[in-house]
Amino acid sequence: MDEASNGTPLYLQIAERLARAIRAGTLKRGERLPSVRELAAQETVSPSTAVQALRWLEDARLIAAKPRSGYFVASRPAALPEPQASRPAPRSRVVQLDELGQAVLRQSVLPGLISFGAACPEPDLFDQERVRRAFTRVVQRHRDLLCTYPLGSGRAEVRRAVARYALGLGCELQPDDLVMTSSCMEAITLCLKAVTKAGDVVDLESPTYFGFLEILQSLHLRALEIPTPPRHGMVLAALQLALETQPVKAVLVVPTLSNPMGSCMPVAERKRLAQMVAQHDIALIEDVIYNDLAEQEDKRRAVRSFDASGHVMICGSFSKTMAPGLRLGWVDGGRWAQALHKIQSVQSGAQTAVVELALADLLNQAGSAAALRQLRATLARRVDEARALIADSFPKGTRVSDPGGGFILWVELPPGLDALALYAACMAENICIAPGAMFSASPRFRHCIRLGVGGRWGEEHPLALRRIGALAGQMLTVAISQRAA
Amino acid sequence: MDEASNGTPLYLQIAERLARAIRAGTLKRGERLPSVRELAAQETVSPSTAVQALRWLEDARLIAAKPRSGYFVASRPAALPEPQASRPAPRSRVVQLDELGQAVLRQSVLPGLISFGAACPEPDLFDQERVRRAFTRVVQRHRDLLCTYPLGSGRAEVRRAVARYALGLGCELQPDDLVMTSSCMEAITLCLKAVTKAGDVVDLESPTYFGFLEILQSLHLRALEIPTPPRHGMVLAALQLALETQPVKAVLVVPTLSNPMGSCMPVAERKRLAQMVAQHDIALIEDVIYNDLAEQEDKRRAVRSFDASGHVMICGSFSKTMAPGLRLGWVDGGRWAQALHKIQSVQSGAQTAVVELALADLLNQAGSAAALRQLRATLARRVDEARALIADSFPKGTRVSDPGGGFILWVELPPGLDALALYAACMAENICIAPGAMFSASPRFRHCIRLGVGGRWGEEHPLALRRIGALAGQMLTVAISQRAA
Repeated sequence: MDEASNGTPLYLQIAERLARAIRAGTLKRGERLPSVRELAAQETVSPSTAVQALRWLEDARLIAAKPRSGYFVASRPAALPEPQASRPAPRSRVVQLDELGQAVLRQSVLPGLISFGAACPEPDLFDQERVRRAFTRVVQRHRDLLCTYPLGSGRAEVRRAVARYALGLGCELQPDDLVMTSSCMEAITLCLKAVTKAGDVVDLESPTYFGFLEILQSLHLRALEIPTPPRHGMVLAALQLALETQPVKAVLVVPTLSNPMGSCMPVAERKRLAQMVAQHDIALIEDVIYNDLAEQEDKRRAVRSFDASGHVMICGSFSKTMAPGLRLGWVDGGRWAQALHKIQSVQSGAQTAVVELALADLLNQAGSAAALRQLRATLARRVDEARALIADSFPKGTRVSDPGGGFILWVELPPGLDALALYAACMAENICIAPGAMFSASPRFRHCIRLGVGGRWGEEHPLALRRIGALAGQMLTVAISQRAA
Repeated sequence: MDEASNGTPLYLQIAERLARAIRAGTLKRGERLPSVRELAAQETVSPSTAVQALRWLEDARLIAAKPRSGYFVASRPAALPEPQASRPAPRSRVVQLDELGQAVLRQSVLPGLISFGAACPEPDLFDQERVRRAFTRVVQRHRDLLCTYPLGSGRAEVRRAVARYALGLGCELQPDDLVMTSSCMEAITLCLKAVTKAGDVVDLESPTYFGFLEILQSLHLRALEIPTPPRHGMVLAALQLALETQPVKAVLVVPTLSNPMGSCMPVAERKRLAQMVAQHDIALIEDVIYNDLAEQEDKRRAVRSFDASGHVMICGSFSKTMAPGLRLGWVDGGRWAQALHKIQSVQSGAQTAVVELALADLLNQAGSAAALRQLRATLARRVDEARALIADSFPKGTRVSDPGGGFILWVELPPGLDALALYAACMAENICIAPGAMFSASPRFRHCIRLGVGGRWGEEHPLALRRIGALAGQMLTVAISQRAA
């Protein structure tokens, strides 16, 4: 086996071969895998490479370790087919959203509601005491900063910490280029302001994050949605066609765990995407907010890591992975870095210095990696449980995404089912879901819903998921009988 | 005397009459004023009204109390004439700033520099321990908020505290209408986004705050500068003409302690300004960031307090008056409140909840008023010292503003002096000043400089002020001899 042959590390070649065998049924559920020693001998690699391969498969939930017995092929929850790839029209559109999205957002956080409407992880998933200690420590040590007017694009400490963090995404960022923002959304808004003007065309995944459409609308930009299958992210051939035939100014993507589809772009395509935007001399705005939640380590690598020409603007935050209440985002604008610094300094200004230092403190702590590993495992169990409940209770013909991490599920209901009517029926029973129509600038996904399962998760949540399935079943029966009549 | 006759409270009628007598020289420096009892008898008012009148004069630094002896006409520092009223061209201009302003801003905070370049008060002017305790208390009690994703326009606690605070500005604001922002500048940016589009005309004071021009430039708005004398703020007759003859979409003003001129609009004109924008159905964007620093209590009253139609958008922050490091601003958008909520939620999102709660804690503390009184007194002494130094060391023909509070002085140098050359000469000696050209979109104020005296104030600062005067004197001598040659 030759590591240099295609640039894929040895452990990943082994892991992916075993993954294919598991998915094809060659290795069956519950079947025992070779031990580390057996696998190393069999593949003529070092034991540590064999361990890496097995860990990758474990992170991908394809195998599970049993103490003192070794690794076994995991029992995946009852499988439903995945949603179909979208086929948006190859034309850009002015974004004109109705009030639905804002209403769902407001409702999703109402107390007393059983909510699958938001994409916010619940506070109990995080080590609140660790965050509090970081905060108290910083305020104690730097109380003068509470009364110091901050200027510039962020404290040096936090920019260094973010640059060090970004090494884990495969990126070498310069602390001086980074701009700290109040959120990832503000970072993305800044990028769009720097590279577009009203009327310009921006390419997006289809379906795409509702908040992106809102930004495009507020900046008077046109949306061009690109087909995005549930597993591999934006179809680059379709993007290529769009870049060749339309006046596209920027591509806005979430290559890892796109919201709402949960797709992860393969590493080779990330590289190609970086090359494509460089060739066409346009900006790629890459949102890496979910990268740390990807089960497979190679999917945490950013497109920016392949960017040699400065065309990739990378935006992130730690609101989904470390401390949702800090309200800090960050951005490196590549060749547009200076423009970003300027817009930020003029239109909003520096962030709260003690909050930046608390984030730097948290990022520099040794425990961060372990905390993330635990967060991923908890969320994976939730997603598995939710998918099993959906398979068990939703009407026949339902499809559901199988995201490689995170806490968002995209559900395609059987044809004929109106997701808006289902949303209304659920709200009447104090259950909040996000109707699919929110996630496109065109009238699409009207039979889809997004379910966020990272929020509060009590005894009532599995019951509520079953109830959504039952309501969908009833509505389908009515729809079929109406068609028959 | 009749309180209802013109709407001016009795105490203010008395105080203003005495103020005119002092300014006219009818009452001379060091002369004793009537006692409270004498004044009350003389004016046939209650003793408490007499006390109010004397306090007003004391806040205005026109009189000073001597323990056990009563009030005396204060010794004002050696007086220089005030700057002349500006006469900008009555045409709007596209804002095209050079790099000067950004350079000054960066330099003004460089360590090792003696800086009069920034408009930021130094940390030692504030009770850092009080702010730290508020922070630590909040983080201890609400540590779940550090890990809770905040949604909406601000915590209810902070919006209530700001609404209560605004009562002191004469405004009844509804907590639900308020949007918390990351700064006063972000608040103003949001207002402009809500009521203008690229190419629209915005009226400003002349000279105006450099940061406003930067926002206008970044939003592609046109600036129309309105004459603004040093004492009474924007000339409303000139504004009226502009509103009648030009397609003005918004007026952006700092009615209290405008930056850099330090002027305060009289109360009657505030009322008229509110009526004018209502009649023309355009937005007034009122920045009240300095209102708490006005020496005269009636000048703290906001234009918004006279707004019956929702045309006044009011923006503020506590960065100059309570804790410059908190990074929180606020805005009530009047009839545009809903649009502001929307833009903020889409383009940047909620602020850090614990910072909001710390601010609410501070605002609700009983000690805030006393802390402000002390801050005003400290700054007044600084301003007096700086004005005396300028009168003593700057060349003949220099004019300087006499602001009714705050920490910013506007200096008009004798004709023929180039403020940019003076700025360069000062920088060569590690002294930072802000050249006047920064404060207009047109080529004006080239013989003016702005001096901020709220920053660090050590032994070297008075010497540096004298040095600026000496450099200006040398340059003037050279200029005169060149003209003669």
